[in-house]
Amino acid sequence: MFEFDIQATAGRARVASFTTPRGQVTTPMFMPVGTQGTVKGISPDELHAVGSQMILGNTYHLMLRPGEAMVAAHGGLPGFTAYPGPFLTDSGGFQVMSLGHMRRITEDGVVFKSHLDGSLINLTPERSIQVQEGLGADIIMAFDECPPYPATTEYVKASLERTVRWLERCLNVKSREDQALFPIIQGGTDETLRALSLELTLPVNPHGFAIGGLAVGEPKTEMFPAVAFSTAGLPENKPRYLMGVGHPEDLVAGIALGVDMFDCVYPTRTGRFGYALTDQGRINMNSSAPRTQLQPIDESCDCYACRHYTRAYLAHLVRAEEMLGPRMLSLHNLRYLHRLTERARDAISNGTFHSWARVWADGYFKNGVPEWFSQALQTGETAV
Amino acid sequence: MFEFDIQATAGRARVASFTTPRGQVTTPMFMPVGTQGTVKGISPDELHAVGSQMILGNTYHLMLRPGEAMVAAHGGLPGFTAYPGPFLTDSGGFQVMSLGHMRRITEDGVVFKSHLDGSLINLTPERSIQVQEGLGADIIMAFDECPPYPATTEYVKASLERTVRWLERCLNVKSREDQALFPIIQGGTDETLRALSLELTLPVNPHGFAIGGLAVGEPKTEMFPAVAFSTAGLPENKPRYLMGVGHPEDLVAGIALGVDMFDCVYPTRTGRFGYALTDQGRINMNSSAPRTQLQPIDESCDCYACRHYTRAYLAHLVRAEEMLGPRMLSLHNLRYLHRLTERARDAISNGTFHSWARVWADGYFKNGVPEWFSQALQTGETAV
Repeated sequence: MFEFDIQATAGRARVASFTTPRGQVTTPMFMPVGTQGTVKGISPDELHAVGSQMILGNTYHLMLRPGEAMVAAHGGLPGFTAYPGPFLTDSGGFQVMSLGHMRRITEDGVVFKSHLDGSLINLTPERSIQVQEGLGADIIMAFDECPPYPATTEYVKASLERTVRWLERCLNVKSREDQALFPIIQGGTDETLRALSLELTLPVNPHGFAIGGLAVGEPKTEMFPAVAFSTAGLPENKPRYLMGVGHPEDLVAGIALGVDMFDCVYPTRTGRFGYALTDQGRINMNSSAPRTQLQPIDESCDCYACRHYTRAYLAHLVRAEEMLGPRMLSLHNLRYLHRLTERARDAISNGTFHSWARVWADGYFKNGVPEWFSQALQTGETAV
Repeated sequence: MFEFDIQATAGRARVASFTTPRGQVTTPMFMPVGTQGTVKGISPDELHAVGSQMILGNTYHLMLRPGEAMVAAHGGLPGFTAYPGPFLTDSGGFQVMSLGHMRRITEDGVVFKSHLDGSLINLTPERSIQVQEGLGADIIMAFDECPPYPATTEYVKASLERTVRWLERCLNVKSREDQALFPIIQGGTDETLRALSLELTLPVNPHGFAIGGLAVGEPKTEMFPAVAFSTAGLPENKPRYLMGVGHPEDLVAGIALGVDMFDCVYPTRTGRFGYALTDQGRINMNSSAPRTQLQPIDESCDCYACRHYTRAYLAHLVRAEEMLGPRMLSLHNLRYLHRLTERARDAISNGTFHSWARVWADGYFKNGVPEWFSQALQTGETAV
């Protein structure tokens, strides 16, 4: 269980098979976010059809509604959501910070007011693990604090040290053998602090690691060096999960730097807002041009929307505020990100990853490939 | 083309196969409403899976947005919506009355303000046929006025006579041989006026007839006698379409009285509002009971929602305002109405229709079977 077998590499980038209790997945992979026990608008059969491998569930949302006991009564998230494959749950820490009101952080944990009914809720490392054991995902996360950006060096240091103490408490109460607990490397964009987080966390020797505290508002010129520093410090034989990251360009750069797992609400959220992802950037289906275009979003895409519908029809749905519009754009965008990781995996296996990534970037970035992206590719081109 | 072959009868009720240019359908049937070129939230593959045979499109909505020219550029509604089966379009008349602002009815047609942008639009019999030929449905409707309920006898009489003159104008401009134009029998709930409408309309000898002007607010004790009077006056060898009717009890009563085709937004609209149709009446998924029920909506239902989800999960989706909730409830409700017509067809074929309908009604009406329903069954039990 939780075996991670590297099958091909290209510099730091790697293709691996990762075995979980509910099945084997192939990395690098993108994980759709099923915040409240559903990837918004998408059925389990459709997730399979677009190539999803592992689905993310949110501890914060699900503990508030319907509560982990109701999910457990269904045999966990696979039974509740009817998606029979592997799941990953976050620890609730990040979302308490972003959604909870009047939060107070102490050594014990976090007290916050529910965004649903204002009730006072206490989330501790122990409670986070209890909830995640009820939700029953294959991969669960250690309870951490994700400091905002910017934050002072003192704050980030104190926070990451507390996160390490919370990790110990998570491990102490964790009881299910069929769940792998990933600790989360923090330290913001400061290499000294990232090094400290790595030093304090590595001895735990878990089945995999998450890289947290990034994609919280810092510029990409700071984020990707921090990713590069983190992956360089992590053991090669364990999966690495870059949390909350999922724009196409971030996936390609992250893969180059040796990241194996990604998640983000981006493909479904931007789909609900009327945007379609392509190799030439995003198409705004709210604009007037697509309304008269009789071709699909993307001739090369094999998703249901691209096989059945013209841009004109999809633009009509968006304009008419019809539910099928966000549904189809979400589906297409998930397929786009899954295909992107498939293409990256093929290129790694074929030894063409870096040239493929550069050609992709030339088509994708309309105003020239940004320096941070080229730098990430270059850094990743040589194995650590 | 447009052949209507009766295969079995039970009193006035009949099972028939109806051939259209885009395929053969079996009646009695319920037609889902694709108001703006989409059955809200449901894909074409799902329509096939739940047993939909013919989809309705709305001339009023589609002429305003995206315009019939754009639909025609896709080869009509089947190409635009990616639903390859038969379609029916209404004439726009009814929706101008219910949605248009500041309408003015003259002998020429109706002038109204678009509910989208307030622009002044002139809808005439000629324009309605032009739009419907662009939309390209298999069955199209004559342009009519549907008087409100209540209305004076004088008004309803003048209106139905004008509707007959409009029918002539529709037939004069109709140019496509592959579309069957159904005239609409009006006359409100007044038998003298219904008889007049029948007398003036029958000589046109169309491929089928619509029964209009009902389900607009009148009590069922007035509506179903008017249905019975209409079907009794229509030729047996032509399909009869009761417009805008689609509650389960109305389908069973209408079938008993010899109606072959129904349409209504009810199954999808009530699904979006959180209600699930069953043989025991509607389940309110917004209420607290379903939140802890681990069984499907309906053990006997073969829809995707019933095969995959518990009531607790679906109630969670509704409560969390997740898109998958209305989508799945709409799907289930469509399947429920299609199964209801399938069961009615089987019972007609087996010679058990009236006993089946009475058993169904005993389970469905929680406060006793209403008089209007029993009366409709009884009236329909004897062939005309």
